[in-house]
This record gives sequence, C-alpha cells and structure tokens, in this order.
Amino acid sequence: MLGRNKTGAKAPDQTTQGGEAAPKAAPSRRSLLVAAGAGGLGIAAGALGHAALGAEASSGAQVEDIVPFHGQHQAGIATPMQDRMHIAAFDVTVEGRDELVALLKDWTAAIEHLMKGADVGEFGATGGNYDAPPEDTGEAIGLPASHLSVTVGFGRTLFEDSRGPRFGLQGRIPAALIDLPHFPGDALEEARSGGDLVIQACADDPQVAVHAIRNLARIGFGRARVRWSQIGFGRTSSTSTSQMTPRNLFGFKDGTANLKAEEQKALDTHVWVGGNTGNEAWMNGGTYLVARRIRMHIETWDRTSLGEQETIFGRTKREGAPLSGGTEFSEPDFAMPGRGGPIMPVDSHVALAHPSANGGVQMLRRGFNYTDGSDGLGRLDAGLFFIAFVIDPRTHYVPMQNAMAKNDALVEYLKHTGSGLFAVPPGIAQGQFLGQSLFS
Amino acid sequence: MLGRNKTGAKAPDQTTQGGEAAPKAAPSRRSLLVAAGAGGLGIAAGALGHAALGAEASSGAQVEDIVPFHGQHQAGIATPMQDRMHIAAFDVTVEGRDELVALLKDWTAAIEHLMKGADVGEFGATGGNYDAPPEDTGEAIGLPASHLSVTVGFGRTLFEDSRGPRFGLQGRIPAALIDLPHFPGDALEEARSGGDLVIQACADDPQVAVHAIRNLARIGFGRARVRWSQIGFGRTSSTSTSQMTPRNLFGFKDGTANLKAEEQKALDTHVWVGGNTGNEAWMNGGTYLVARRIRMHIETWDRTSLGEQETIFGRTKREGAPLSGGTEFSEPDFAMPGRGGPIMPVDSHVALAHPSANGGVQMLRRGFNYTDGSDGLGRLDAGLFFIAFVIDPRTHYVPMQNAMAKNDALVEYLKHTGSGLFAVPPGIAQGQFLGQSLFS
Repeated sequence: MLGRNKTGAKAPDQTTQGGEAAPKAAPSRRSLLVAAGAGGLGIAAGALGHAALGAEASSGAQVEDIVPFHGQHQAGIATPMQDRMHIAAFDVTVEGRDELVALLKDWTAAIEHLMKGADVGEFGATGGNYDAPPEDTGEAIGLPASHLSVTVGFGRTLFEDSRGPRFGLQGRIPAALIDLPHFPGDALEEARSGGDLVIQACADDPQVAVHAIRNLARIGFGRARVRWSQIGFGRTSSTSTSQMTPRNLFGFKDGTANLKAEEQKALDTHVWVGGNTGNEAWMNGGTYLVARRIRMHIETWDRTSLGEQETIFGRTKREGAPLSGGTEFSEPDFAMPGRGGPIMPVDSHVALAHPSANGGVQMLRRGFNYTDGSDGLGRLDAGLFFIAFVIDPRTHYVPMQNAMAKNDALVEYLKHTGSGLFAVPPGIAQGQFLGQSLFS
Repeated sequence: MLGRNKTGAKAPDQTTQGGEAAPKAAPSRRSLLVAAGAGGLGIAAGALGHAALGAEASSGAQVEDIVPFHGQHQAGIATPMQDRMHIAAFDVTVEGRDELVALLKDWTAAIEHLMKGADVGEFGATGGNYDAPPEDTGEAIGLPASHLSVTVGFGRTLFEDSRGPRFGLQGRIPAALIDLPHFPGDALEEARSGGDLVIQACADDPQVAVHAIRNLARIGFGRARVRWSQIGFGRTSSTSTSQMTPRNLFGFKDGTANLKAEEQKALDTHVWVGGNTGNEAWMNGGTYLVARRIRMHIETWDRTSLGEQETIFGRTKREGAPLSGGTEFSEPDFAMPGRGGPIMPVDSHVALAHPSANGGVQMLRRGFNYTDGSDGLGRLDAGLFFIAFVIDPRTHYVPMQNAMAKNDALVEYLKHTGSGLFAVPPGIAQGQFLGQSLFS
C-alpha cells in the first residue's frame, strides 16, 4: 500500500528508460510469480535479487520456451516458426543520428528482456516508483516467454526520403534495398505499405506478441510512429523439418518446399547476406524481409470446384501431394503428361513457384493467415500476410512475383493491398545494439 | 487423380447442403489424417466408414478437446473459456420464415460437425465430387477440435425492423431484448453495432475459430450477410475456478469476481432464463449476450502512474488483490479507511462493478482482448471486446453500465465503438435445430 495515492502530479516521461536499464536483467515474469506464489513478498524480493544478479533464466521449464536473442543472425528468421505474429512498421520522427541510435539501443535492451519472458525496463510492470508510469504495460505478467522472437529491419526511407539523405546514412543504402516495382494487379494502399523500420514479433501466444509490439511502440513514443501493423493468427509455413506444414485460407498446404532451418547451405545461398565489403559490409549476416499483405477473395474461391482448386495449386487438397503423385514431400514431375497437357499445369502455383522455374532461387517463407473483420460488402477481410526472407529481392523475389502476377492461375483470387521491403541487419553480440553495424 | 480436370462447367450451388447432410456424421479431421498416415487411402476410407456409422469420436485424445454440442444450454457460455475468439453478426437477407428456419437448420448441422472437429457437410473439404466446390473450406484439416464452441443469438431486428414484424415473429420478442440506451460517452459506429443474428466461435486455436465463422458465413451466403466481425486474441476472464485470471490491455486482472461454471445456483439466478410461460417460454434455458467493443486509449493509460492505475482499478497490478489487502480472491473491504477517504476509492472500477454496488447482480463475463492494427494517428487500435451473458440486461447490465459510464475513473481511458444485444436461445437435443423453440 506504500505511496499509493491519487496524485495529479505529472508523471515523469519514462519513454527513454528502456535503454538505460539495459545492464540489469529484469526477472522473468514467470519466475517472479512462481516465487511469489511460494511464499509472498519476501521470497519474491529474493527472486528479484537473484535474477538481477545476471541469471539468464532460472528454470529448465523456462529455457525451453526462450529463443536466444544474441547470435550471428537475428531471431525470427531461421528459428522454428511460431504460430502467431504481430508486425508493425514505424516512421522515425526524430531527425538526429544520435537520437536514432538511442532509439535502437532502447529497443535492443527491451527486446532482450522481452524474449526472455521478462518485463521491459529495470523495474518492469509493477516495480519502482508508484508515482511514475510502470515501465512495462503488464498484460503479459504470468505468461511464459512463448518462444517470442523480435526481428528488426530498415526500410529504404530510413536512409533517404524525398527530401534527401537522412541520419548521415548516404552511401550506406544496399543496392538490394530497392523500391519494389509495381507488379501486375497490385492494389497497394499507402497506409499499409512502406515504413522506415519494421519490427516483427512472433510467439506461440498472441498476447505475448502484441505485448512486445505495444511496449516497443511505447518506448518509441515521440520518436517513431506506427505506420501500419498487422496481426497474423496462424502460420502458413514451416521453417523446421520438425513442423507440420500448415494451411492457408484457401485450405491448401502452401510452402511445402520452404527452406528449412536445417538446410544451412541453402540458407547461406538464398537467405543470408555475406562477403560484402565497403559500404554494404554492415549487412553481412543479415537478410531482406519482403512483406506483402495479400487479401484473398475467399468467397469467390469457395465457389470453385475441388478439381479446379487442385489444378490451380498443382497439389491435392487433403494431402498436399503434387498432382503428379506421391506424398506432400514428393518432387513434382512437371513432364508427366495429363489430359491436354502436363498433369502439373504450367500455370499452377507449384509450377510457377518451384525453383526450377525461377533459376534455382529459393526463399524462406514465414507468412501468416490474417482476418481483419469484414468489409462494407459483408465479406471477410482475410488472407495471407506474406513474409519472406531472401538474400536479394532483385533475384529472389521480383522475378518470381512478376511471373506469378502475370501467369499464376491463383492471381484472380488475390489482391495485394500492402507491401514493404526491409534490410534486416545481422544478429548481435552482448553489449551491441540492433543495427549497430550500420552506424559504425 | 480420378476425375481431376480443369472444367469450366458451373459448379452446383452447395450452400444448402450443410443441412441435408446432417444425419451423417463426418469423420473428425484428425482421425482421418491419422488413419491416412497409418497406411494410405484404403485405411482412410475405413475410418470414414467407421465414423459415418455414428461414432461420436474415435479416440480418447479427441474427446478431451471436444465441447459437447447438445445440452440444456448452448456451449460457449458456462463452458470453460477458450483463449481465442471470432464473433460475427449477420443480417438476414431472405424474407420467408421457412427460409430462415432452413438457414438455422443448416447452421445447426454444420456447428455440430465443427464442434466435433469435423469438416462441415457430408463429404467435407476433399471428398465428394471433384467438379463441385468442396463443402468445407479446408484450412482446419489436421487441426484438433480445439474446444471449439459455437453460440448463436438473435437480435431484436430479427423480430421486427423499421418496416414492421419479420418472419411471423410478432409477439415473440422477449421484453428483455431491448434497444440498449445511449450511455454517457458512447461513440458507437453503425457498422460495428447491431445485427439480426450473432455467432460466437471460441477455441484454443484461432484458426479453428476463424474456420468456423468462415464456413458458417459461407453456408449463409445469399441468405445472411456478415454485418461485423471481430477477432479476439486473448481471453480477459475465466469461467471456471480451474482457470487463471488473465489480464486486459491495461495490464490488470479484471473480472476476478466473475461468475464461474461451478456456481450453479448463481448461474440460475444471474444468467439462465427460466420459468417463462407463454410467448417468452422459448427463452427458458437461454440467456442474453451483451457485446461491447471497447477501444482502450492505451497510450494515455501507459502514461499514468502505477499508483494512479491501481487507484483507478482498486486492485494491485501484479497480484490483483483489492487495495484493502489480501490476495486476488479476497473480498474488498469498502469500509477500510485510507488517506482522505476509503482505501478502495468509491469511483474505482472494482467498487462500481462489485455486486454490492449493483443490487447484488452479477454477470458472466466472457470478453477478449483485441488489436485491429493502428489508426491514422499511429496509435494501436486495441482494447476489450466485452461479452457478458446475463439473465436480463435491464437489471444486469444497463444500471451498471450507466453507473460506470458516469462515475468510473476508468472511463476517460475507454471509448465504446460497437454494441449489440442478442437473445441466446437454449441448448438443443439431438434432432433439433438452434432456436427451434422460437419457431414452435
């Protein structure tokens, strides 16, 4: 009850505290609660002291659902795919390079806490000063880390916009960070596209992902403004051979041939940037995130026959096997004859997406199903929030998307309403901040 | 590969088949897959035959995550609360009573399948005729039943609208199915309010809930139009003493004192309609669903001090204990003195929501946190989709909401943007359809 009173005094602005609190590890949400449950405040305070001494995580049960933050690459790319996502793009509203670096440091500190299942800040949701706003918003108290991963990327407008270079980053724009071309059939909405920065939060529990984005947005308050955000309720890919291939809202397994975390060599070829020198060396160990909000005309699709649906995908609906036979993971036989042409139609989704049709390129897909209520015509606003990580969008996304937008039998059921391309810097070591290589 | 060809022939309209398929139970999605995995098509067909012979569910693992469909009350009310929700309101676009009954029959048959974890229809997502659209959209193939519950309610406009009575239902409007009054501070949007019918789908897996609403909307195509829909990503209440109280987006445990499924007597007093005769007898065993979309000004809230936040709720943030002391489930002591007044402020949320301030009335809360992207000002559009089940909104919702809207210290952080009130008919026995008592 100490110090609790209804005060009209203006609370100090805490938006810059996330970064300053970095050196001290906040206790995990669950360990605190378990300790409190075991005997009340005294023991909880003991647990706090213990965690504050630098324990990474205090129990085996917790470690299991924590994705490591530090490493060669950022988390949330080749780490096993979680079921839920909240992604947000931000526009930076400060103008100084130092202020941008301070924001990235604050976000880095907070992300490190969040991925451990801890509150952001030194004192978290309920510690510290009763007369100040809590550092953490608190809705994830008691929830496990839930394999939260947070991934940060930079848009082209962070480096330069219509007024010229920004943040002294002239000359540091990677050649691959292009303005994506207009693709046939694009119906992009400005308010769902672009952004100076992107933050992707994925977790097993959507409340944990939403908590992360919300607290990062809060830390950025007055420095970065949310441009768009999207909730994804179900993954549409797997990034590990141990995961079942899920289904998109057309009811099909898509992305069966997705790159997997276990394919280290393929990742080095198709996902991770490496070997750059000079002005692009900062991207070594990084990758590019392509985001496309793809609305599906599900009502139209649902009136299509099962045969037509399978012909369009080139796969069977239940098993996900190519129409040339076998099981889900069988290689399609594009030469096998069918009635009036190959049994795998040349304009089927599988045929157009297959590496053999795209000069051997592959991508790491990490997309999510979404539903955003209904539109004015009583149709569900639902579809795929496509996310892919590629080594270079000029070779690994644009040609395929051009081919698909022109030829894919699926296109008439799709509308691309949002788009973004972001340079994802490499992972970092303890003591560094996300994106540090760009500023050194 | 049989019969698969790219046909231009118009597929027959299958929107009315859900009902006709009712007598035959579709196999559960998981049992089919397990069988198929065990040895291919022959065994899968065997499983189909087995399930079609009337087995309710074929394995213990499945029964565990199935909520029973038949019973005295509809599911999704006093059954244990699931973590995710998709709710949709519909406007009926047909005019005949028989057509409305046919729609309810079709929906009933489909809901029975869905809650078992089965596809809708006789042949489901991938069976039947290759030249016809699949009966089920398929994105839940392989997912367990996930405790799906589907709950149907009727809005006042189903009985009469501005043009007069509808569907021959004059005289059957329950007195409790009022037009909710305008509450202080309401900022309701027409497109998020009202509706002739509501369907609430709750499940452990959001993809299962979305699949249910989508397939029910599809079955209603041409007969009922989605008016609004909402995804909830995290429950904000518990309906069983075995569940932990979750947190809302203010970071607080709310609804600690919620009615629980185990409190049978309290449910009969505060939730279940009973003892009606005459024109309202059809509601016996039913209840009323109050829906309110409550946007939270979370950015403003987040700048409020921890002390102020706890004062506004009347509870501690971490433990959720009343400010008068104890633990989460301790009764608040509204007489305990504090500095300058009672330690539990009279305008605190707990004080105003407590049965002692509301003539002893209680409600069964079953709400969800939501986030619908961000608004034009870069703020997250997030809050609480409030759902409560009450025996009579005139006594169990309107007075409390009036008092809260006028006095609750929380109100300045809230904006009600959507509203609905629905009469939820009782549960049904095998062979009946949802809402049957209204039409007999």
